[in-house]
Amino acid sequence: MGLKLDAGEVMAFLDEVFPQVRDDFVIDRLDPMEITMRLKVADRHLRPGGTVSGPSMFALADVSVYAMVLGMIGRQALTVTTNCSIDFMRKPAAGTDLVAEGKLLKLGRLLAVGDIHLRSAGEEALVARATLTYAIPPG
Amino acid sequence: MGLKLDAGEVMAFLDEVFPQVRDDFVIDRLDPMEITMRLKVADRHLRPGGTVSGPSMFALADVSVYAMVLGMIGRQALTVTTNCSIDFMRKPAAGTDLVAEGKLLKLGRLLAVGDIHLRSAGEEALVARATLTYAIPPG
Amino acid sequence: MGLKLDAGEVMAFLDEVFPQVRDDFVIDRLDPMEITMRLKVADRHLRPGGTVSGPSMFALADVSVYAMVLGMIGRQALTVTTNCSIDFMRKPAAGTDLVAEGKLLKLGRLLAVGDIHLRSAGEEALVARATLTYAIPPG
Amino acid sequence: MGLKLDAGEVMAFLDEVFPQVRDDFVIDRLDPMEITMRLKVADRHLRPGGTVSGPSMFALADVSVYAMVLGMIGRQALTVTTNCSIDFMRKPAAGTDLVAEGKLLKLGRLLAVGDIHLRSAGEEALVARATLTYAIPPG
Repeated sequence: MGLKLDAGEVMAFLDEVFPQVRDDFVIDRLDPMEITMRLKVADRHLRPGGTVSGPSMFALADVSVYAMVLGMIGRQALTVTTNCSIDFMRKPAAGTDLVAEGKLLKLGRLLAVGDIHLRSAGEEALVARATLTYAIPPG
Repeated sequence: MGLKLDAGEVMAFLDEVFPQVRDDFVIDRLDPMEITMRLKVADRHLRPGGTVSGPSMFALADVSVYAMVLGMIGRQALTVTTNCSIDFMRKPAAGTDLVAEGKLLKLGRLLAVGDIHLRSAGEEALVARATLTYAIPPG
Repeated sequence: MGLKLDAGEVMAFLDEVFPQVRDDFVIDRLDPMEITMRLKVADRHLRPGGTVSGPSMFALADVSVYAMVLGMIGRQALTVTTNCSIDFMRKPAAGTDLVAEGKLLKLGRLLAVGDIHLRSAGEEALVARATLTYAIPPG
Repeated sequence: MGLKLDAGEVMAFLDEVFPQVRDDFVIDRLDPMEITMRLKVADRHLRPGGTVSGPSMFALADVSVYAMVLGMIGRQALTVTTNCSIDFMRKPAAGTDLVAEGKLLKLGRLLAVGDIHLRSAGEEALVARATLTYAIPPG
């Protein structure tokens, strides 16, 4: 299957439905069933010490799977997260963008499952991993 | 076991180590191994339609477990989340505070496990549930 | 909502579709959206030292949610587990039945979410907790 | 880091501490931080229709992470699973061995995190994915 929306179209749709994400996230690459997405780190994402907060990591993982699903199925704002499991493994580097590498492991009629690896930009070590399930509205 | 820190002392400590949470969260009740904590909903927590965002729900669940652990073990900033699983079950009510009811299911020497139920203030139906594991630094 | 199948009818249906579970599990109580189910511990469920194995705990949690869902929606063999998160917190007591207390937190048209607490029979301390999502076939 | 135990030594240790796994599992490949492990499917692992049961999939994922950890840290029977999240995505092929491809994402002093992909032997499609955390006894 190919993409129904490219990276620019997905970002334009996110701007419409979640205007507050516009300043936070950028899609570096969107391919069928795969994505590289980045959190542009700003003060509001940081904990003392300069590392990215847990909720900001969750937000990046969540929007990355949403963007992959939108890319595959088109403009479906009602697609919603039903489940997330996330493992926090290492402290992110201070004051550094956080990069999500994602894959859709399943894209069914009703459920999509995406897997996300988070790293500080330019680093090898995993900061966190997450798996998210999205429910796709029937019809 | 009793509390090492009461609700006011936990909030004072959170103010020190996570100053950005001060305006977002309030502890309604802190008992040994149990908590009621509230997200004071503001525009920055909302999605279009006025419902609380997923990352804001995650943040409330996460800080609720952290507050329970701090209450039991005292001022230990280095206690960190290692794992979270969260199920999103219903849309929260628009423009309404989100309330977390939490229990510590386990408080070991190295790991604590907390369970959180999230509801819109004044409603019976569960919006989400989450389980979080915290690693407690040895010594 | 009331039950469509009582405990005896659910067990009879499990016998039909999963004959191998007959000797392992018994429903102690089935109420709308709630269950108490027991693993009758035998050698094949044990690890050296006499404690119940992880896969046997998973099996008990899984069948408990399945039984709650069947009780509410009736004979639907195609209802399948899509996700499980499980936390193992304490060693079970040796050579003792394992008891699951379960609740359905959500019973939607397409997804059901169940929460399970596992304890060794007669003990207060939690051995494990699990949350499972089941997909219910449309129609 | 290299292996402290090779595949044969890990299997010999599993035979000692979990004698009942001997007939079920085989290590096809063990490298530092990586494994390929197989469930030799027999009647006791199957559901009607001939597909591998959920508890058998859980067991394969669990023992695969345990084997990777043992390979890296040596004979440490007390290493225990603390958490598992598993997504079941497709029905396994009937009467076919199940193959786990695993990676250790983190090997810390106290916690190890492993990621597992399960497929029916000879197939591309993912049957399930799982992430497991193991606690490693201090000292």
